[in-house]
Formats: sequence, structure tokens, C-alpha cells
Amino acid sequence: MSERIRVGVFGSDGKVGQAIVDAVEAADDLEFTVGVDKGDNRSALVESGTQVVVDFTHPSVVMDNLEFLVGNGIHAVVGTTGFDDERLAQVRSWLEASPGTGVLIAPNFAIGAVLSMRFAAAAARFYDSVEVIELHHPHKADAPSGTAYRTARMIAEARAEAGSKPMPDATSEELDGARGADVDGVRVHSVRVAGLVAHQEVLLGTQGETLTIRHDSIDRTSFAPGVLLGVREIGSRPGLTVGLDDLLDL
Amino acid sequence: MSERIRVGVFGSDGKVGQAIVDAVEAADDLEFTVGVDKGDNRSALVESGTQVVVDFTHPSVVMDNLEFLVGNGIHAVVGTTGFDDERLAQVRSWLEASPGTGVLIAPNFAIGAVLSMRFAAAAARFYDSVEVIELHHPHKADAPSGTAYRTARMIAEARAEAGSKPMPDATSEELDGARGADVDGVRVHSVRVAGLVAHQEVLLGTQGETLTIRHDSIDRTSFAPGVLLGVREIGSRPGLTVGLDDLLDL
Amino acid sequence: MSERIRVGVFGSDGKVGQAIVDAVEAADDLEFTVGVDKGDNRSALVESGTQVVVDFTHPSVVMDNLEFLVGNGIHAVVGTTGFDDERLAQVRSWLEASPGTGVLIAPNFAIGAVLSMRFAAAAARFYDSVEVIELHHPHKADAPSGTAYRTARMIAEARAEAGSKPMPDATSEELDGARGADVDGVRVHSVRVAGLVAHQEVLLGTQGETLTIRHDSIDRTSFAPGVLLGVREIGSRPGLTVGLDDLLDL
Amino acid sequence: MSERIRVGVFGSDGKVGQAIVDAVEAADDLEFTVGVDKGDNRSALVESGTQVVVDFTHPSVVMDNLEFLVGNGIHAVVGTTGFDDERLAQVRSWLEASPGTGVLIAPNFAIGAVLSMRFAAAAARFYDSVEVIELHHPHKADAPSGTAYRTARMIAEARAEAGSKPMPDATSEELDGARGADVDGVRVHSVRVAGLVAHQEVLLGTQGETLTIRHDSIDRTSFAPGVLLGVREIGSRPGLTVGLDDLLDL
Repeated sequence: MSERIRVGVFGSDGKVGQAIVDAVEAADDLEFTVGVDKGDNRSALVESGTQVVVDFTHPSVVMDNLEFLVGNGIHAVVGTTGFDDERLAQVRSWLEASPGTGVLIAPNFAIGAVLSMRFAAAAARFYDSVEVIELHHPHKADAPSGTAYRTARMIAEARAEAGSKPMPDATSEELDGARGADVDGVRVHSVRVAGLVAHQEVLLGTQGETLTIRHDSIDRTSFAPGVLLGVREIGSRPGLTVGLDDLLDL
Repeated sequence: MSERIRVGVFGSDGKVGQAIVDAVEAADDLEFTVGVDKGDNRSALVESGTQVVVDFTHPSVVMDNLEFLVGNGIHAVVGTTGFDDERLAQVRSWLEASPGTGVLIAPNFAIGAVLSMRFAAAAARFYDSVEVIELHHPHKADAPSGTAYRTARMIAEARAEAGSKPMPDATSEELDGARGADVDGVRVHSVRVAGLVAHQEVLLGTQGETLTIRHDSIDRTSFAPGVLLGVREIGSRPGLTVGLDDLLDL
Repeated sequence: MSERIRVGVFGSDGKVGQAIVDAVEAADDLEFTVGVDKGDNRSALVESGTQVVVDFTHPSVVMDNLEFLVGNGIHAVVGTTGFDDERLAQVRSWLEASPGTGVLIAPNFAIGAVLSMRFAAAAARFYDSVEVIELHHPHKADAPSGTAYRTARMIAEARAEAGSKPMPDATSEELDGARGADVDGVRVHSVRVAGLVAHQEVLLGTQGETLTIRHDSIDRTSFAPGVLLGVREIGSRPGLTVGLDDLLDL
Repeated sequence: MSERIRVGVFGSDGKVGQAIVDAVEAADDLEFTVGVDKGDNRSALVESGTQVVVDFTHPSVVMDNLEFLVGNGIHAVVGTTGFDDERLAQVRSWLEASPGTGVLIAPNFAIGAVLSMRFAAAAARFYDSVEVIELHHPHKADAPSGTAYRTARMIAEARAEAGSKPMPDATSEELDGARGADVDGVRVHSVRVAGLVAHQEVLLGTQGETLTIRHDSIDRTSFAPGVLLGVREIGSRPGLTVGLDDLLDL
């Protein structure tokens, strides 16, 4: 059996951090080394021989964390938000000075969400119609969800590239809002129902057949398998990787 | 074995009429007697000992047909549209003079559509949230569908009777139309996708659980089982019955 | 505004008991009075003017609890298992001596599960085919689930009463197990997939249309709304009520 | 605007052939030239300047048709069954002598079915569990369907290649058949319900999330879009192409 990858966690006292520690500890091929929280000394990561560190912390500290990790040749898997072009350029420049090190920064670690978007975009050009239905708990503030919005835009782009015709729609009498929101020509419907968590369905149709790609996330730990995938893969991908997509090798 | 019910059809040359003739002929307990179309003599219905006649014809001729049937003590199952209060009163007065005769007039013979509406209305008061998603082919002119509109109103009525609280919805940033149409406080979403026929989903939710009632109609003959049910039951229900609901004995 | 119902809880220290206390405290029309656990004095229930007590405890103590409650004229809502005919007869005899008191004993408080079964059974006789698909997390020991088994039997009974014909099935080449388990002539399919919790779908079909009744329970607290319904209703239903069905007034 | 592709059809008098003629005539970028049926002279295809011919005929005549087409430099799109290795080798040898000509032979032209299989296989290695549910009309003789069988095998292969662990399944008490058929370790469930046509769902799950890929085919013309895709693409793909997959460029 190959040796286990040694994994540290920034922000291991938080809810998300703790879920990541639990997931690492439950994996046969990974070994949890040390958790570093506010006030802790980061050198423990180096001393423990940690190979990969997961960072789901805060935009205010993540850059400092990354500089430290890259400087010490430790790979990073980052779910912290707030990366603009400037920040990405900074990370790239640090990585140039440490050519064997890899950093993965991803806005969404739910593998199913990423796969859904990719499949929907890949299939879109073969269908006359595509609509997105996203369903969430009623405490959500935005409609549509960010994921649904991105999905619709990816579908619209794929259709534009393929030269798809406008979708057929003979609606002439519409009660306001019935046909959903229009995102670059793709209709998006937002359902808010108690008892739901986070769900999305892309419905594609052509003559006599439909294809449905549905993702159901019912647990806030659904990011864990994507994080573990990142931990396992980043060691063999030096440089900066943005988004989980590249790791999925579809 | 009991004797077979003798069934005639008005408008048997039309597409719908022909489907009804086929369905009657395929049923072990029914016997097709005679089809009557424009120009044919209706007396053949009496001479053939027809017990029930199905009428899916036109508002312009259906009243004349009904007067003839009731006058001859023949039961009627009617899917023709255009019945207002005045017409229903007229049919009732004819039936008073022929007390053993039954007439069923229904706007929707798809049993699943009728059951869906009933179940949704019966369940609504136990749930915090209810939304309706209807999905049709893109040639449909109205959004939402008439069935979805009626379903939403039945749900709203059931909730009002039960004193239900307003549904939870924290949406504060909405892209226009995302949350669907508002029918008496019930959100309705209309999906139009090639390859679909006529589908409806009612989604009800409360803490930790959801209930979904979905109806899929993929064939224009889906009215047939409801018509046959009417044919079998109307003989034992003298007077006027409006809507398939009463026959379902839920 | 009417006065709030005063509610006590047996076993309030347990996981389920705590969830019930939380649900009672969150309800505007209910007031939590006192929780009684092993070693506590039950008289606190009487002294606090408690009107209804919820019991999700253990078969070994529930009878003693019920004798105490009925003897003190306190209504009971019971989710504890292990009630056979003998125990039910005993509860009835206690209730005879306390005619204004009501006891509800139910094996399943998930309203959606109860509604699903009722709707499926009510709809079954209008359809040629009915099958049950239940989907659970892969840690479940039994296949099919108890709920699916009961649902299939209720469907079979409803079809037998209605004189339904055997379901059509031309399968002549079957890979062992493909067509599922046979429960009184109703096929039941058990899916076990990580990421699921507890889900059930009843699929009914006839010419050109299908009706789907689906229940998704994604949280162990999905019994709470049913318990609260019982708490609100049991005061006006003296005597013994078995099962949530009667309270649903369908 | 580019010139329209000139398309002929073998077996144009049959039901499938006629549907193909209709689809070609309805497409802006295609022009129907001539239909050739038993007894007709195939030279009309050459004389009409036909560029692509569609063949959904019979194993007994398809080889003769292909020899004629390739010999005349006409591209072919073939849905006729019965191609074994020997036949494929024969077609390849004809094509060697006509290097600019393309032949597409596919067992399944329903784009959605092909995409479903591909997506399911691509996603399989990221999930702990995968099961297949296929749902068909009750006149079907085999269970599971050929497509479900192939899908399960593709999933099993993808998991084997990725070194996936066996799926979790704690079932210890099973009513015979409840857990479905076992195809190379992938459970397949076959539902047979009146009112269905041909449907398949692949359900993949891991911690806290599931991904569902569903294909619904409700019409025997659902092969048409795949055939038109083949017609449009085969001119730029000389040689033999087996299966629609390669044309989808996923």
C-alpha cells in the first residue's frame, strides 16, 4: 500500500473546518496532521511534515496563509472566497518561485454541482429547449441561486457557440412571472419550499425525448468529497488550478 | 357475468370520437352500438338499445344532442365544453322530466389530473409551503396552464379554510420572474420544453420532508379511462353530475 | 387569541424528546410545561396544569406512563412502539374510566408518509399498474422498507376490493431480481444509495398517463409536524385513536 | 447561406423511413431527394446528386445497399441492426477503396440515451453508489432493457478502471428481488407500468448529495434528431464511424 498523504487544516475549529478534519480522518489514504486556528503557530504544519493543507477560512487571512504554504512547498486546497484576478496573479507569482507546489482554488466543491453544470453545457447544443429549475429552502435570499445563474450562462454560451436557434416558445398569454427569469435566453425557475435544502434540475428537450440532469444536496457536508478529491490530486498538479472542473478529467 | 353496457358515440368520425369508439370496443364490459355524426339519424341510438352515449362534439350541437338523449332516457357522458350556469340549468330541467336518467358533464376526463388536484388540496393544510410546476410542449399559448391555475386556486382555498399562515419566503433579491407567477399566494412555474406533452408537479414541504404529487400525460388518449369510468357509473347516478370528482369517491 | 395548549414531554432528555421540546417551544399556540425523564417525579405534570403529554420513550415504560396520564385526565400522544392488541385493549379500558381523555398512538408521525400511503391506496383502483420504489441510505438493513411493504399491501387491498384485474406485465426474459420483490402482486424496488435518507415513490399508470406520489424525508425531525398535529387535535378526540390517519380527515 | 445537403432514404415507405423523410423535409439545411424501396432502382440516388443516404432497413439488404452507396461515393447513415465484426470489416474494406466517403453505423440514435450513458460513466468514479432504474411500458419482454444493461456495464467498467471500492450496502434481510438485478455489481431495477414509454434514471450518490441523470423517450420518433446529426456530420468524417458517441464530441 502507498503511503498516506499528510493533510493539515486551517480553521479546523470552525464548523466547516471540523467537517473537513472528520472527512480526512475517515479516509484510508489520508492522515490528519495538525489543525491551525487563529493564534496557533503555523510552523506546526512544517514540523509535522504536512503535504497538503485545506483552507476554508476568510478572505482577510487566506492570502497570508497561501504565501506561507507556497513558501514552504506545501500544496493547498482552498475553498475560501474572494479571489479576484489580482489575487490569482499574486498566487501565480508565488508559485513561480516554488515550481513543484500546487494550489487549487475552487468556488464550489460539490462534485455533483460541478458535474451537473458541465453535463448540461455539453448536452445543450443537441436540444431545442433547455430550462433550469432550482429548488431551495425558503430562507434563501437570492432567486435564482448563484449556481443556477452560472448554469444558465454556461448553457447560453454553449448554444451560442453551436449556433443553436432560439428556443421554441409560443406563449402569448402569460401571467406575470409564470415563465421564470430570463438569463441570456435560458429560463430559470426558483422554487422555495420548506423541507428542501439545495436542488437543481436542468431539463433539455427535443422531438420525442427529454434529458434531465438533477443535483440534490441535502447536507452541508456535501463539499467534503470534492475537497478530498482536491487533496489527492493537487500534489501531481503543480501551479495554480482554478475550479474543480480540471480535476474531473471529463 | 353481467351484461355489457351498450354505448353509442356522438361525433364518432372525429379524432377524439374515434379514440372513444376504440376504447369502448377494447373494454370487456362495454359494447359499442352506433356512432352518430353530422347528417346521421339519431334514432339509430334508440333502435339499437343504446344505454349510454358519449358526446365530445361542439358547443353548438351539444344541447340539442342532450335534449334528444334525456328525452329518450339515454344516459350521457359529456366532454364538450361551453357549459355555463344557464346551460346546466336547462339540462337539469330536462332531467327532472326523466328522473331515471343520468348526465355527467366534465371539463377534464384525465383521472390523474383530477386526482392530483384533489390530493394536492387535501394535503395543502399540513404543509408550510406549496408550489406548482407545470411543464408543457412549447406550442402552448397560455402560461400557466388552466389546470395549474385551478390547482393553485384549490390549494389557496384549502389553506384559507384551514387558517394556514403565509408561506415562508425570504427572497429579497429576485431576478424578474424567477419566483414564478402568484396565483392567490401560490407560486406557479411554467416550463416549456420540446419533447414534453403535459405534466404537472405539486411540491409540498414542511420541516424535514416534502410530498410531491406529479401527473404526466403523454398521449391525447389519456381522457379515455375517465370516459369509460363515466360510462360505467352514470347509469347508477340519476340527475346531473358536474366534474369527474364525484365519481371518484375519494 | 385562544389560550395556548400546555404540553409536557416524557423522555425530554433524549434526542427525539429534545426535538419535540424544541418544536413545541417554536409553536405559537403551544406552551412547553415540563419534561419528565427517568428518576423525575411525574407529579410535576399534574402540578403544572399540563394538558397533553408526548411519549416517545420505550415499550418497557410506556404503559406505566399511560396509566398515570389517563388516570390524571391528561391527553397523550404516543410514538413509542410495541403496542399489540393486548396493550391497546388495556389502554381502552383505562380510557373508559376517564371518558374525556384522549390517547393517540401512531407508528408513523411523518405526515407525508401517511398521506402518501392514503393517496396511493385511494388512486390504485383507477390504474392498470402500480409499483413502489423506495430509496434509502445504504446503512439500512431491510429491503423493502417497512413503509414500502405496508404501502404495497394497502394498494393490493384496494385493488382487490375494487375487483381490479392483474397488472399487465409481458416480461418473459428476466435477469434475476430485475422486476423487484412481489408484495401481494405489487412490485416493490429497493434502491440503496449513499447521500439518500428516506424516500418513496408510488408510480401508477394507465393508458397515456401516469400519477406519481413521492415522499422525501431528509431529516430525522420530520416526525415533529405530525406530533404537533396530534397535540392540537387529541383534546377534542376522547378515547383511543390508532394511527395518524384519522386525524388527517381526508 | 450554405447549400443544403441532399439526402436520400432507403426504405422510405416504411414507418421509420417515412419519419426520416418528414424530419429531413422539415430541416432548413437539408433537402430530400429520393426514397428507394424494394423494387425501386437505386440509380435514382446517383442521378439526383444525393450526398447522404439514410438506411433503416433490414439486415438482409443493408450490406448490398452499403456496397452500392460506398461504390458511388455517397455517405451513409445506418440504423439497421445486425452488424458483427465481419460485416464491419467488410464495410471498412469497401471504404478503403473510396477514401472520401463516410459511413456511420449506430445501434441507438436517441441522443439522450447516448448522452445519459456517457454522463453516467463519466460521473461514476466520483460516487460511492450508483444504481440504474429503467421504466417501460408493460408490453416489454426483457428486463432489464438492453440500454440499462449496457449502461450498468459501462458504469461497472468506469468504476473498475478508477479502482472504486465496492458500493456500500448493509442489506441483511431482503425480500427476494427487492434489491434488483446485479449487473457486474451495479443494481438495476426494471419498472413496468402502463402509460410509460421508455425511461431510464441513473442515480449516483455520495456523502450528502446525489446526482440523477434521467432520459425520457415518449415517442418513437426520438431517433430523428440523432439521424439528422449523423447526416450533417458524416460528410466531414471519411471512413467508418461506429456509434453516435464520436459525433457528440463530448
